[in-house]
Amino acid sequence: MEAAKDLGVDITSICGGLGLCGKCKVIIREGRELLSPPSSSEERYLEPGELRAGFRLACQARFSGRGKVVVEVPEQSRSGRQRLLVEGKHVEVELNPAAHIAVLKLPKPSLSDPRAHFERLISKLPHKGSLRADLRVLRYLPRAVKKGNWTVTIVWHTDVGLLDVRPGEDERLYGFAVDIGTTKLAGYLVDLRSGELVSVSSAPNPQIPFGEDVIARIAHSRTEEGFRELHRVIIQGINGLIREACESARVDPRLVVELVVAGNTLMHHLFLGLPPRDLAEAPYTPVIDSPLDVRACDLGVEMLPTGNVHLLPNVAGFVGADAVADVLSTGIHLSSELSFMIDVGTNTEIVIGNSDEMHAVSCASGPAFEGAHIKFGMRATSGAIERVWIDPNTLDVKYSVVDGVSPKGICGSGIVDALAEMLSAGVIDTTGKILEREHERIRKGPDGMEFILAFADETAIGKDIVITQRDVRELQKAKAAMHTGASILMSEMGVSVKDVERVFMAGAFGLYIDPASAKRIGMLPDFPLEKITQVGNAAGVGARVALISIDKRRECWEIAQKIRYYELAAHPRFQEEFMASMYLPHLDLFRFQEVVEKMDGLVVADRHKNLLEKLKSRLV
Amino acid sequence: MEAAKDLGVDITSICGGLGLCGKCKVIIREGRELLSPPSSSEERYLEPGELRAGFRLACQARFSGRGKVVVEVPEQSRSGRQRLLVEGKHVEVELNPAAHIAVLKLPKPSLSDPRAHFERLISKLPHKGSLRADLRVLRYLPRAVKKGNWTVTIVWHTDVGLLDVRPGEDERLYGFAVDIGTTKLAGYLVDLRSGELVSVSSAPNPQIPFGEDVIARIAHSRTEEGFRELHRVIIQGINGLIREACESARVDPRLVVELVVAGNTLMHHLFLGLPPRDLAEAPYTPVIDSPLDVRACDLGVEMLPTGNVHLLPNVAGFVGADAVADVLSTGIHLSSELSFMIDVGTNTEIVIGNSDEMHAVSCASGPAFEGAHIKFGMRATSGAIERVWIDPNTLDVKYSVVDGVSPKGICGSGIVDALAEMLSAGVIDTTGKILEREHERIRKGPDGMEFILAFADETAIGKDIVITQRDVRELQKAKAAMHTGASILMSEMGVSVKDVERVFMAGAFGLYIDPASAKRIGMLPDFPLEKITQVGNAAGVGARVALISIDKRRECWEIAQKIRYYELAAHPRFQEEFMASMYLPHLDLFRFQEVVEKMDGLVVADRHKNLLEKLKSRLV
Repeated sequence: MEAAKDLGVDITSICGGLGLCGKCKVIIREGRELLSPPSSSEERYLEPGELRAGFRLACQARFSGRGKVVVEVPEQSRSGRQRLLVEGKHVEVELNPAAHIAVLKLPKPSLSDPRAHFERLISKLPHKGSLRADLRVLRYLPRAVKKGNWTVTIVWHTDVGLLDVRPGEDERLYGFAVDIGTTKLAGYLVDLRSGELVSVSSAPNPQIPFGEDVIARIAHSRTEEGFRELHRVIIQGINGLIREACESARVDPRLVVELVVAGNTLMHHLFLGLPPRDLAEAPYTPVIDSPLDVRACDLGVEMLPTGNVHLLPNVAGFVGADAVADVLSTGIHLSSELSFMIDVGTNTEIVIGNSDEMHAVSCASGPAFEGAHIKFGMRATSGAIERVWIDPNTLDVKYSVVDGVSPKGICGSGIVDALAEMLSAGVIDTTGKILEREHERIRKGPDGMEFILAFADETAIGKDIVITQRDVRELQKAKAAMHTGASILMSEMGVSVKDVERVFMAGAFGLYIDPASAKRIGMLPDFPLEKITQVGNAAGVGARVALISIDKRRECWEIAQKIRYYELAAHPRFQEEFMASMYLPHLDLFRFQEVVEKMDGLVVADRHKNLLEKLKSRLV
Repeated sequence: MEAAKDLGVDITSICGGLGLCGKCKVIIREGRELLSPPSSSEERYLEPGELRAGFRLACQARFSGRGKVVVEVPEQSRSGRQRLLVEGKHVEVELNPAAHIAVLKLPKPSLSDPRAHFERLISKLPHKGSLRADLRVLRYLPRAVKKGNWTVTIVWHTDVGLLDVRPGEDERLYGFAVDIGTTKLAGYLVDLRSGELVSVSSAPNPQIPFGEDVIARIAHSRTEEGFRELHRVIIQGINGLIREACESARVDPRLVVELVVAGNTLMHHLFLGLPPRDLAEAPYTPVIDSPLDVRACDLGVEMLPTGNVHLLPNVAGFVGADAVADVLSTGIHLSSELSFMIDVGTNTEIVIGNSDEMHAVSCASGPAFEGAHIKFGMRATSGAIERVWIDPNTLDVKYSVVDGVSPKGICGSGIVDALAEMLSAGVIDTTGKILEREHERIRKGPDGMEFILAFADETAIGKDIVITQRDVRELQKAKAAMHTGASILMSEMGVSVKDVERVFMAGAFGLYIDPASAKRIGMLPDFPLEKITQVGNAAGVGARVALISIDKRRECWEIAQKIRYYELAAHPRFQEEFMASMYLPHLDLFRFQEVVEKMDGLVVADRHKNLLEKLKSRLV
């Protein structure tokens, strides 16, 4: 793994080299004897035949350093380029950015007018008066004035002050908005004179090798070194995003005068280099929730060095600026209609409310839908199965693959489809159990029963792509987390599914997932399909809105302060609700009365009978 | 010179190693033949006997690097520790610093109160509301909160925002004021809770080796490297000042939360790292005149890293924040009485005015009064003749010496006395010529006539201490610069000596010089002695006042904007006025009518007759 990193070779690693995901399989072609013996983790993730064939986990096999080892990275261990969601629903906003630009013709200094360069400049501003001066800008101010022969273009920021002085007339003015997801980064280059989106860029979050989810990243940041590393790589990642978007639009990054950042609270903290330790334990206190302006050069962001980096405000430890940006872009806070917003990701945020009140939870849904912990899981890159249909009579499978090539694995939207279809076809029961049955697609594998989605001869990896019993359990846990959050939030607010008038599905899955499948497995409460709007990367859209409108930016802090946050894990009903939500589609405790009436019709495994008894007793 | 610098050996160098001051004489004890032959500059400054005895100028003699050279640094070439003026007249100011401190008991976070650390802190502030947060402070905020067990002491600044968070109760709060003189630095450590001066420190300006006056420093800063060097050493110098004052008061420099800086415009620019190139040529445009707040760590000032550095405002290229601080501390701007303020230094600022109007000039008086260009000139350190009396009948000389030891040379106040006494005793005439006369103290030297102040057997250097004809000329030029400034300023304002009600003499000479002597040689206009107040380091006092009172600090920008600046060198009468001011005490053109009447009584050298004719013709 280390050698591959040094060489820039692309190896999938979801757990960050801890031997926990089994995704970094490589084949040793020469020099097997020079490597350490297989670890217990390798014995768990590699089948005996694979071990014999020379397969190892890249993160586990250690090389003595003497002699020569030849390693092959097979197709399914290559992470490839992710298909990332940067698109979002368009929102109409009046252009009113925080950054301003003006061309000024300065009077030439003379012995009868010996004012300083800065004061001559201030006196020519449209709004005369004071303007905070940045020392770095002052240092090149005289050169710019002279080079421009007393004509300069100045850039200033309503909240921050003087950002830049350019020689001559040069009214190019750009801003950048970024959504830092736990798994993905999405960037938007915007022309601040027109408000138009000029180009987009995206990349996997470069922190992934250090931990796949929020909890793993917090754990990695416990050492000072790990913390600095996470800070450093995310800044580098954002710099890459800016560079890529600027290159494709042929814009000099120094013309980017403001960056607006949305992300969950942990991403916010790691980006700023704020210690995230308190996010690791209750009550999950952030360092700061307020919006913050920081100079680009103080963070090492490669844009105009004296440009402004604006951090959108957080709500709480696990509901961050990304949820605020979601609300801003969907307009929940402005409407009297009750809206429900779910931003599905490694961490899933749910907000419910209207212009009077807003409530939020965060669900540790985990990266199962990103392909982690799923045997053939992969990100939504070329070769990923993204749609699945199963004939309920024959169990014949049809699927579609990203880029239309032979499949290598299965991505989030495919996984949701597969689970929904397996449930409808009776391959699994409502407890998620794969039922034993005589069929060529159903067999016993090393991890219990498994269902074959694609046979070896159809795939690019030369073996069957299956959904295992263990996979189903992972997906159940992930969807249960979301469903639990939604249920508790609605009960706390005293509303039911019928009261909700608009449902927004945001995030990477928000656009690609089939809402019907999501409902069938109980990822979402039973909202009528016609109320559901897929809004794509709403956090990214919110960041763009805050970039081009200072009025909208001010709304963000109002939103953050208005949202009431509930800590799910500490909720008295969390355990029971979570257990009930494990069912497919769910046992909605909030709607338990109805459910219990139909209970005899459910296929309930022995080990869940106790729970049902307990639930009944609660109702009595 | 380079070797001495490397070894930390103390060698006087006023011209910065350019071979122009002749102060860095050293004696080569071994290895003369390994050095470069004497330069033309050495031939000028070293007498033939000295060359034969092994004297060289440290800045001129180059060593091949092979073999061994033994060098002695004689007494008079050691710069020693300067006696520096840090005292100033006390000014009564109501305590109201920009920096505030408060102990806050924060509510412990809980799941029902999940607000962030920063918001919990803000909510407990005496004035609730917003406070700009510094990223660096946020980075250690959670640690401070925990270490203090939810009791913290916070420091904030009215104009800047949050400066510091300390664990527990710790209400120590210090500020530092500094006056950056061209030649001297003076620092004041102030307890911001009481406004009391805790300790003082002082040092020579470490830029001296790179040029003795403002013009030489600007010349040195013409290269990027020289500019950076001047910036670096002045920051180091200020750091030394803070360290010294803090050590002597046993105060941790991290408790110093604000630094207020006064200095002339060049010092202001070099301290901030602002390019001073435009100060080199008319119209001498500064980069900025406005007051400025900069974060300590952005400048490398060693105090609280997130503490504030406040730069007092400038008036123009050659009247800086030091003159503003002078006015603030003398209160010229608040009184209806017409006041005259002269801050004597390498650059001399003169302000005349009252609460209605203020006018200022800057005079390039040069460093003659600091001992430069004066054969036995030295700074006011141990061994310097500081007072001189000459018996007009016998020409017997009495003198007093700093620290009461045998004299090594003569410092500013001694030079002014000597010149005044030589004039009164008829040793020199009103043109400054040393008259040839049979007396053991008057003789012909290598530079023309010279007057012996101390015979070799009285001195610590084993040779006669003399005032040469060339010395007298240097002093005439310096005092003429000041007198010209004062005359032109008064004529521009349309006032005469009689209209002035208060005269403030500030600066290093302001306290030690004999005002009567200064008047006798025409350094000052003919103000009655009883109107003259010696206010010492008024700029330092002004900086202290601005440190402890934000109201007074706001007055500074009003002062700076109110002062009208005149560029002396561009004034149409400058040349004639300067020539007339060369006379001892002066030919006051503004009072020429009176002077011309007495003209036949004056002893006028042939070469000045033309000028007098020209002056007369101007009057007709």
